[in-house]
Formats: sequence, C-alpha cells, structure tokens
Amino acid sequence: MNPNLFQEDIYRLGSLCHFDKQVRQQAIEHVLECIQIAQAVGSDIVSLWLADGTNYPGQDDLRRRRQRLLDSLQTIYAALPAGMRFLIEYKFFEPAFYSTDLPDWGTSLLMAQKLGLQAEVLVDTGHHPLGTNIAQIVAQLLDEGRLGGFHFNDRKYADDDLIVGSLNPFELFCIFNEIVGADVEGNTNAGRIAYMIDQSHNIEPKIEAMIQSVLNVQTAYAKAQLVDRAALRGAQEAGDVLGAYRVLQAAYETDVRPLLAEVRVRQGRNPDPIAAFRASGYAERVARERTAIPTTSGYPGA
Amino acid sequence: MNPNLFQEDIYRLGSLCHFDKQVRQQAIEHVLECIQIAQAVGSDIVSLWLADGTNYPGQDDLRRRRQRLLDSLQTIYAALPAGMRFLIEYKFFEPAFYSTDLPDWGTSLLMAQKLGLQAEVLVDTGHHPLGTNIAQIVAQLLDEGRLGGFHFNDRKYADDDLIVGSLNPFELFCIFNEIVGADVEGNTNAGRIAYMIDQSHNIEPKIEAMIQSVLNVQTAYAKAQLVDRAALRGAQEAGDVLGAYRVLQAAYETDVRPLLAEVRVRQGRNPDPIAAFRASGYAERVARERTAIPTTSGYPGA
Amino acid sequence: MNPNLFQEDIYRLGSLCHFDKQVRQQAIEHVLECIQIAQAVGSDIVSLWLADGTNYPGQDDLRRRRQRLLDSLQTIYAALPAGMRFLIEYKFFEPAFYSTDLPDWGTSLLMAQKLGLQAEVLVDTGHHPLGTNIAQIVAQLLDEGRLGGFHFNDRKYADDDLIVGSLNPFELFCIFNEIVGADVEGNTNAGRIAYMIDQSHNIEPKIEAMIQSVLNVQTAYAKAQLVDRAALRGAQEAGDVLGAYRVLQAAYETDVRPLLAEVRVRQGRNPDPIAAFRASGYAERVARERTAIPTTSGYPGA
Amino acid sequence: MNPNLFQEDIYRLGSLCHFDKQVRQQAIEHVLECIQIAQAVGSDIVSLWLADGTNYPGQDDLRRRRQRLLDSLQTIYAALPAGMRFLIEYKFFEPAFYSTDLPDWGTSLLMAQKLGLQAEVLVDTGHHPLGTNIAQIVAQLLDEGRLGGFHFNDRKYADDDLIVGSLNPFELFCIFNEIVGADVEGNTNAGRIAYMIDQSHNIEPKIEAMIQSVLNVQTAYAKAQLVDRAALRGAQEAGDVLGAYRVLQAAYETDVRPLLAEVRVRQGRNPDPIAAFRASGYAERVARERTAIPTTSGYPGA
Repeated sequence: MNPNLFQEDIYRLGSLCHFDKQVRQQAIEHVLECIQIAQAVGSDIVSLWLADGTNYPGQDDLRRRRQRLLDSLQTIYAALPAGMRFLIEYKFFEPAFYSTDLPDWGTSLLMAQKLGLQAEVLVDTGHHPLGTNIAQIVAQLLDEGRLGGFHFNDRKYADDDLIVGSLNPFELFCIFNEIVGADVEGNTNAGRIAYMIDQSHNIEPKIEAMIQSVLNVQTAYAKAQLVDRAALRGAQEAGDVLGAYRVLQAAYETDVRPLLAEVRVRQGRNPDPIAAFRASGYAERVARERTAIPTTSGYPGA
Repeated sequence: MNPNLFQEDIYRLGSLCHFDKQVRQQAIEHVLECIQIAQAVGSDIVSLWLADGTNYPGQDDLRRRRQRLLDSLQTIYAALPAGMRFLIEYKFFEPAFYSTDLPDWGTSLLMAQKLGLQAEVLVDTGHHPLGTNIAQIVAQLLDEGRLGGFHFNDRKYADDDLIVGSLNPFELFCIFNEIVGADVEGNTNAGRIAYMIDQSHNIEPKIEAMIQSVLNVQTAYAKAQLVDRAALRGAQEAGDVLGAYRVLQAAYETDVRPLLAEVRVRQGRNPDPIAAFRASGYAERVARERTAIPTTSGYPGA
Repeated sequence: MNPNLFQEDIYRLGSLCHFDKQVRQQAIEHVLECIQIAQAVGSDIVSLWLADGTNYPGQDDLRRRRQRLLDSLQTIYAALPAGMRFLIEYKFFEPAFYSTDLPDWGTSLLMAQKLGLQAEVLVDTGHHPLGTNIAQIVAQLLDEGRLGGFHFNDRKYADDDLIVGSLNPFELFCIFNEIVGADVEGNTNAGRIAYMIDQSHNIEPKIEAMIQSVLNVQTAYAKAQLVDRAALRGAQEAGDVLGAYRVLQAAYETDVRPLLAEVRVRQGRNPDPIAAFRASGYAERVARERTAIPTTSGYPGA
Repeated sequence: MNPNLFQEDIYRLGSLCHFDKQVRQQAIEHVLECIQIAQAVGSDIVSLWLADGTNYPGQDDLRRRRQRLLDSLQTIYAALPAGMRFLIEYKFFEPAFYSTDLPDWGTSLLMAQKLGLQAEVLVDTGHHPLGTNIAQIVAQLLDEGRLGGFHFNDRKYADDDLIVGSLNPFELFCIFNEIVGADVEGNTNAGRIAYMIDQSHNIEPKIEAMIQSVLNVQTAYAKAQLVDRAALRGAQEAGDVLGAYRVLQAAYETDVRPLLAEVRVRQGRNPDPIAAFRASGYAERVARERTAIPTTSGYPGA
C-alpha cells in the first residue's frame, strides 16, 4: 500500500469490506476516531454510511466481502462505549453500481442483530428502489425495536436528495403515521428515533431549503397526530378498507398550518419561519461575508 | 364469518395475516394439510408463497399484520416433521399493491430465523424491484445457510414469468456463479438448493417453453462451472477490476452447446431436446386428446 | 386461420399489428363496428387501447409491426366520421412483456400526427415507468393540442389500478395544475379533455370506490384552481425556486373539503357523497339482487 | 445578469430553456460556436445534451420551457451548415430531478421533426427508465429515419456509465440485431449512425476500460451479423414464437472470439487487444508522465 495515496484512493475498492486487511484496518481506525470525537463532543450516536461495493460482476467475491464487513463491524462495535448507539445506514445503489455491501434494510438489520443491542438501522428515505413501501420498513424496524433514525429527503427516481415531502408529501405522512401509531401503543423504539435531514441543494438557497424541510416534516408529523386511532382500528377490524383509508385521509386533508403557527407563537417564535428568515437578511449577509474570502476553487457557491 | 363464502373470498383481506383469528386458523389448517400431503407423497419440502398484503394506506395495521404472520408461521412450524424444510417465498408487490406482508428477502430471512433451522428462504427471480442484484441476495443467503430454493423465470419490468434466461442470460449466469463458487469452497447450503421453474406461458407452447427453460438453466450452470476460480480470486485480490470481470466473461462467452449435447448423448438422450420434442408429436397428440374432452370454459388452451 | 378459434386466440400474437393480414382485417373491422356503435349511441369519442406486443426477442419484427400498426390505424381513421375524436392510449408494458406496440406517449402522438387532427393521445396515469413525470407529459400534449383524455387511477409499482389519488395525491394535483394553468391562458385543448376512471377494485366495494375516486379528483381540481397564478409566474420569472414551489404548496395544503361540500349543497346534492351512498342501502340491495341470479362461475363478486 | 458569474451559475436554472432571454441567447451562442469549431475541425456532426430541467414542482412553467426550447433550437438549426447533422440527446432524469426538458426519445424526435431533416435523435443507452425496451426505440427511430447515433454504456439502475455490455450483453446484442436487420433490408438510416462511447471509469483503468467497451460492441455486432434472417422471418411469419427466439439465441450463443481475432490478424493487428495494451506499458508510461506534472487538485487520477 502506497502511503502517499490520498484517503479516497486507498478506499477506491472498498473500506470496511476491502480485500486488503491494511485498508480495512485503516477504515476501522477512522470509525474508532469518530467514536472518540462523538464522546468528546457529548454525542451518543454514531452513524455509518458505507460507500463500499463493486461496479462489475466478478470484481470481488460477494460472500467474502460480507464476511469482512461483519468482521470490521464487530471490531468497531467492541469499542463502542456503553450508552452510545451505532446506526447502520443502507443504500440501494451508488456510488457502487453493480453491488453495494449494505444495499437494503434487511442487510443492515442482520448486521445490527449480529452486533448487539446498541446497533440499529438508519433509514434514508431516498435509498430504496422505486415502489418500495418505506412506511412498512419503518413498521418492521419499530416492531424489531431497531429503528435508529432517519435521513430525510425526497426523490423522484434515484437518491435525488430533494426537500423532504416536496414530491410525495403523503408518503411522508404515512411514515409518521407508523411512528405515531407505534408511540401511542407504547412501542419504546418510537421515542428514541434520531431525526436527521440529508439533502443536497444545488439550485435553491440552502438555509431556506432546510427551513422548508423542517416545515414539511412538522406538517407530516402534525397530521399524523390528528389520525383518529380508535376509528382507524375500528375500521381495520371491521374489514372496512375504504373507511380505514378515509380515516388517514381525513387527517391528511386537514390544513395544519394554523395549528403549527399557533405552536410557534406559544413558543415565542415567529409563526412564519420562511418569512422571518427572508426578512432577517441573514442569507445575504452570510453570502457577502463568504464572497469576501478569496477561494482557489472559484466556484461562487452555486 | 359466513360459512358459505368460497375460500378466495374468505382470504380477500389476508390469510395468515388476517385480522380475524378464524380466518388465520383456516389458513393455518390449509398449510398443515399441505404438510400432511407432502409427507404422504414423500416430499421433504413445503414452500409458502403468501398473497397477503394491503391495497390502501390504513387498510390494516402493518405491525399487527407482522405479529400475526409470525404467530401463524410459528404454529405451522411447530407441526413440521423432522427432516422437512419449510421454504418462505417473498414478493415485492402483487397481488397486493400498497404493502405485501413478505415483500423482500430480509423479511423472509428474519421470519426463518425466528422459526428455526428447518425454515429457509425461497428466491423467485421475478419478485424483486428492478435493478436489484439477485446474485448478491443469493450470496447473502448462502452465507447465512438459508437459501432454500429458486423459482426461476425472467422479466423485463414486473413478475412477467417469462422463460428464465430469455431476457438477461448474463444475470442468470451470475446467479449460478455464486452457487458454484460457494459449492467449490465447501458451502454446505449450495448442495441442497431446490430448483424450480415458476413461469406462465401465455403465447408460446407450454411444454416446449419448459424444455427451453431447462436448457437455459443448463447453459448458465455449465458456463458457471467453466469459471477459472483460481484466476478469478487472483485478480480479485490484486485489485484487477477488469481482469476479474474478464474471467467471468471468458466463461460466459464460451459456447457450451457442444458440451451440453455431449453430456446428453453420454446419458443416452437426444442431444437436441427441442428437436426431439418437436419430432415426437407429443404436443399435437396431447392437444387432440384435450380437445376431445368437452369443457365448460370453452377457452381452448390459448 | 381456423374459424373455430375464439376471438382471444386469434389475437394471441397481436391484432392491428399481427403478421397475418386476415387477423389485422378482423381487428380493423372490430374497431369499425365500435365506431358505428359510438355513432348509434351519440358518442363523439372512440378510444383505442391495444394489447399488442411481443413476449420474446425475435418473436416478431419490431419495424414491421410498427408499419402494420400505422397501416391499420390509417384504415380505421379513414372511416372516422367528422366530429368524432379517436383517442390512442399507450402502455409501458403488460400484457406483452418484451415489447408493446404503443409503449409511450411519444409513439401515440407520432401515430396521431400521421393520422390527422381527429386523432389524439389518451393518458392512463398508471401506464408509465416509475419515476415518470406525468404532469410534464400532460404539459407537452397540451402544448401540441393533442391531449385527448385521461384514464385515472393510482399505483405504487405497475398498473395497479387503485383509486386515483390514493397513493400520491400531490402528483394528481400537479397534473390538474398543468390543465388549469393551460386553460387559464387560453389553451383550447384544456377544455375538451375526456376524463375517465379506469380502475380495478378487488378488495374494496366497487361503487363506493368509484365515488371516492371522483372525490379525490374533485379535491385535486379544486386545489389546482386555488393556485395563485400571478404569484406563481412572478416567482418563476424571478428565479425564486422555493417561492414558486410554495405557491403550489399553499394551494395544495388548503383544506378544500368545506368548499366542495358547499358546491354540492348549492347543486342540491348531499354534501357528503360517501355517507349518502352508505345510508342509501343501494350497495346491499344490488348485492341481494345479484345473489338471487344463479351463476355458473360461483364467485360471488369478491 | 451579473457578467462576473461563471458559466455554470448563469445556467443554474437552465440554458436553452431559461426564462431569461439573455441566458438563452448566451447558450445559443455557445452552441453556434461549437458548430463553428466543428466546421473548423472538419466534423459533420454536432450533438446536444441539455442539462436543463427543474427540481421542484412549480419552479418553472413546463409549457413555456418547451416553447423556449423549440425557439432556441430553431435559432441554432437555422445556422447549421448544409451537410452537418444535429443530434438531440435525451435523458430521463439527472441532473434535474423533477422534470427534464428533453426527457425521452419522443420529445427529441418531435423537436427534430419540427427543425428539419438534418436534426436527428441521439440514444444514450443509460438514459431510460428501467424496463425500457431500447431495441424498440432504435427500431422506431430507424423506421422514422432519425437515428442519429449512440452514446454507449451499461447500467444497473440509473445512468451508471459502466462498460457497455458488461451487465446485460444480450440487450446490446438485441440493439445491434435491429440495426443489422434494418441495414440488410436497405434502411438507409442504418448506415449513417454515429457510434460513440459515453462512460465514466471511476475504479477501473480508463484506457483498458475503453478497449474493453470496443470489444464488447464488436462482440454484439458480430453476433448480430450471424443471425439467420431468413429463418428468423420464417419463424416470425409462422407464429413460431420460440423458434424465432431461438434463431436469435443461436447467434448469441456462438463464440465469436475466434472470428474477431481472425479479423484483427487480417487487419494486421494483435488478435488480443487487451493483452497487447497491457504488454505495451503505455498506461504506466502515461501515468508516470502525468504524476510528474504538479497539479493543484492533488487527486492522482483515481
């Protein structure tokens, strides 16, 4: 292994799954350092997204990669301090195109179960093949007590990382419906989910896009709280397919903007976060400060 | 529950996952009867494909359905005689459209693990979302020792049930490459896989289509046997991405038709099964016999 | 051609695209009869959905099928009375699995353009590959003046034929946003779109499902009417990506149920069509009448 | 418009479809300059891939974008010298995620038809939704006489830009089968297709990957030449579905490596291009020369 190579090049064919034990060891040490940093800053969650995979059939042995992955994860898990949770993210494809070593929730959950109770699954809403019922994955993980957290975003085809709830807000509502439904029934997992936003804003202003994302999540969560759960269960157990669907729909069609504004006012905040942010001039001030700093890349924050 | 209802109508909202305990019990008894029949005819495998699911958000509670499924499966598993394997099939969608209770290999494997060592996963090659790496699922299941068997077929978009290997023969080869590779290394699962064909022939002659399917499987299997495994591993562990790919390609591009013909001749069979079948006149004879029997449906076996 | 074959079997390898001229002629005559019936019952629209396609590579020549299709359509179009519109539906896949002769809107539009101004395109919302932007197809067809009509339904993966707007109501709203936006600007196509529902209700009561579908369409249409078009255009032409999105979102988040109830009351109707239908006892009465008629199939309308 | 902005930022919300006439004009001038360069270097083809699109519903008006696109293209086409072809590429999604202004072959063909006979469609094999029958698109474009050229690559899910033929070599064969079949029958389009490779090699050596791509294309083309076209047509017109499929399969299963080696020897070339390239030491020499040049990016050509 050439010590002059940059980190990225060392990991060109994998990190925790690499065929070279030295590369795996370096990747393991990187994660162990992350755990130390987490402790230093008082964080009790470390999450892993693994870019490992292969681009061509035959490139590497799929079973051996799996065994190396488990071995690396076990070494990491052994160093995890008590009280720290280890979230294992999965992704259907990309950056690897033929195989991804953690391609689906099933693989992440299997790994988490082999590691121990501090290991859980991280669901990124953009990391599934089209047509996947994400709400059902959430339900399965809640039922297993292994839903560690979310990376929220929305997408039309691949991992587009658009504003969460911007293309299919009903799907986001259905996800929160599972969480609220489990929470109400005493599922202990529902209360310790780590909610994160993982998006990429290429054409829209970044901070405003983040505020919008939070608003969309609040909207979905508020609507999920409005579901009449007794009516829902009654319709379900009467086999009233459309009646049950309409209980969800009644909550979803409710305009929760006045409610959310009222909550903000009671918290001493501006009822309209976007308007407040736009009026603050913060975005322009930060942009000015950033432009003043000469950069070598020359790309002005498009 | 109306005793006059036909079986299909009873199961309209589910069978092993139905909210009504009586319906679940009836479905369980149906599977138990299948196990008895299997014993009676000397079969040591029972496989389960479950059409259960929901069509609309809210229609039923996804966690409760999961708990009922596990409960039903445990009752069935308890009745499984020693030496009989119980294969759990999964399917991404259809006939249910919003959620399917066994939607992916992860769910089937989780259920199998909760049941016990006689429970395994059945892979139908047409039951995945597009873009799924089926060879990797096979590798994962072999690594877990839970690959029960296959339902072979090919597809372009959904569960099209076309002749296996007719649209992407290289993918079929990659699946067999995983099996042969595991077998060569002593993986004990590889030797007890149940190979089945699950296709639907709407426009082509059915028996000829089945023969063609067997030929396509034999072709993929023969090519997988030709892979130079020492060269493959050498290239993999040298990080030679294209060299490793070319080891697979060299086997795949080999014309194995002469080899397969030779094998058939040595087995005392016709080297060209399609020609032999066409020459036999069997299809026409059977069609004549079938036409002679009056039917009420009137649809002449299209 | 065996005259004893049933219609379905004659069309086993195609109808308007079949290699056999006699089969094509029979299919053409079938459509011509449909046109006569349309005239007899005073309908000024005939729509064509073609199940033609192939299941295996090589099965038929794709260019020759295309030429036969155009030839058949031209014969039909020549017999179209003045004032009657001919809507050409497309479908991505199914029942044919390898190729479909009218697979996408581009093919239907090309055929319509070759035929003449009375030929238009029919959009079934479930007939696209996943990830397709249907609103954009609608926009393109409106811009070409060739949007003949819709077959409404919703889907999660394939042509699931669920209640329109039940899985992604925001997508339905975006479709109506295109129509209303074009209509407001004087696009003459927008006013002559034929709206149809094409769904399949397997587990839910059929009439109630149809009423629900109409309600979902009314909801999407009402919300599209609420879009502040001046604000939308202002944001678009200022390059305010999120501001423009929020104009749509503001309309979409509005609860239009009171508005729709008020409209119904002013029309002298019950403000709650589902409750009115359930209270009417119509479904039970019809079911009783139907059960009284002995059938040979024995399947009681599940 | 700020003249200090870099090109990319100006085009952040579009180029030929941008709402700002000045941005469109700048983009048009850029293409006109490309045409001049093409003339200067003696190229008779200019191809356009347009990254234009929107990321959020409402962001821009879809019909107006279409009208601007056509207007921009007409200005460009008017400046096209006689004898130069203008190839219009399409792409299903990415970099725009909500809508892409040239999303499918139908849109590109419609634009080409509005422009004139020098405009044709460019097919990138990775730019379609999953499940699309690319061979059929090729057949349609050949039938219209508008197949300008290809950007070859392979993919498993999105626009992965892997080595063409590396994941589904049979699909590549089916594409060439359409071209050879049309050519044999005198289709004049088939002889003037521009074949290009458009791939991205992130983990494998780039030059070797390009050679491998050419080999895979040669393999598919050679096999397509081997199709017994009289037998194929005979089976097609006898309705022999499987017989016709087997004519293709017989050509595809043939090992054409000896034939291709022989062709290379007769051309005075090394029969094994990969071995010859590896033996040449060219890759290492170029890498050494490149490493000697100090770069600011610091990323050593991974």
